[in-house]
Amino acid sequence: MNKKSIAVILSGCGRRDGSEIHEATLTLWAIHKNGADYQCYAPNIFQSQVSNHLTGKTMDEERNVLVEAARIARGDILDLADFDAESHDALILPGGLGATINLSDFASKGSDCNINEAVEKAILATHALQKPIGALCIAPVILAKILPGVKLTIGQDKDTAAIIEEMGGSHRNTMQTEVVVDNHLKVVTTPCYMLQARVDQIGEGADRLVQKVINLLEK
Amino acid sequence: MNKKSIAVILSGCGRRDGSEIHEATLTLWAIHKNGADYQCYAPNIFQSQVSNHLTGKTMDEERNVLVEAARIARGDILDLADFDAESHDALILPGGLGATINLSDFASKGSDCNINEAVEKAILATHALQKPIGALCIAPVILAKILPGVKLTIGQDKDTAAIIEEMGGSHRNTMQTEVVVDNHLKVVTTPCYMLQARVDQIGEGADRLVQKVINLLEK
Repeated sequence: MNKKSIAVILSGCGRRDGSEIHEATLTLWAIHKNGADYQCYAPNIFQSQVSNHLTGKTMDEERNVLVEAARIARGDILDLADFDAESHDALILPGGLGATINLSDFASKGSDCNINEAVEKAILATHALQKPIGALCIAPVILAKILPGVKLTIGQDKDTAAIIEEMGGSHRNTMQTEVVVDNHLKVVTTPCYMLQARVDQIGEGADRLVQKVINLLEK
Repeated sequence: MNKKSIAVILSGCGRRDGSEIHEATLTLWAIHKNGADYQCYAPNIFQSQVSNHLTGKTMDEERNVLVEAARIARGDILDLADFDAESHDALILPGGLGATINLSDFASKGSDCNINEAVEKAILATHALQKPIGALCIAPVILAKILPGVKLTIGQDKDTAAIIEEMGGSHRNTMQTEVVVDNHLKVVTTPCYMLQARVDQIGEGADRLVQKVINLLEK
């Protein structure tokens, strides 16, 4: 039997302006650990900003989302414009602020946010084929915007949960490592670094999420 | 009982010009998984080069090792110049080419390489206190230069193994996830991405290495 193929959408390389590195790495780890394969994707666009992760300040630089995400993917990454939902069994979006400034403009627009066109197409195409979608940390806000009525979690942040409800989503509070499964829409979410967490808890959350995603695609 | 504190020296953020991201993340994950805490460090210097991880080509940019390593450490990282061996129970160096172009010039000089002064001081101070040191992937070459006669592994690459022997080290061939322990010098090494490996194998190797390091410091 062929291994299941899970597409992973990255948003750069670093929690402040891209994919959160621990969440992204531990998603890839969990996919391999559970006997599946992954293919990373990222949009070929400039980052909305470049952050100095030591000081937290904005840097006067330009960086490309696909090029920086390639650091996490060890070079094995494709332009999200070439994504074909038929080629994969499931789709996962790790967290990091890149989800809210590169894959969307949620950070500045909230419930009025726009989702990057390639990201929206990839999610809708995967969903239309009834394949499962996972999202970690803050990335579930993208699903709340695109999949009306989806049940999901971003942890316990009241303001973000309120915006999710405003977009038509249904938020569930969770603790570290917990996952929320929307069996109807085939969506799995887990809070990761939206809560104070140790790295092994990020691994446990990612592992549970990947297991649930694989369970859903075998149904 | 206080948790053991393990110092981790990073060399940037990305396999071609810094710390290999999976190895670094899974080292931090393994430290937490085994009940210890970590503190990341990096030298406050410019990278020897900046690599486009999508194309493999050199980019006409300058990046700082400490600032980029802060992406992996989520901002919680200190200048290696301020390292105090008394404050930690052990020291670990993840791999990635940053070990051979930023922490040393092994990539261009081989057995005649120079080790970054702060890196050498941190290793020698830790070793002088008889505390264990771990190194993953290509990073063991730094230990071969500094700790004469050390027994270690970088996998199975014959050319690199020959240079290690030239520097006075004693190389052992290993397969994925295996570790080599020098009980006398208290050094633990594992090959990681010096061999073709899946991400869960990197996790297994890092986990075994951290367990051996903790065993050694409890002796």
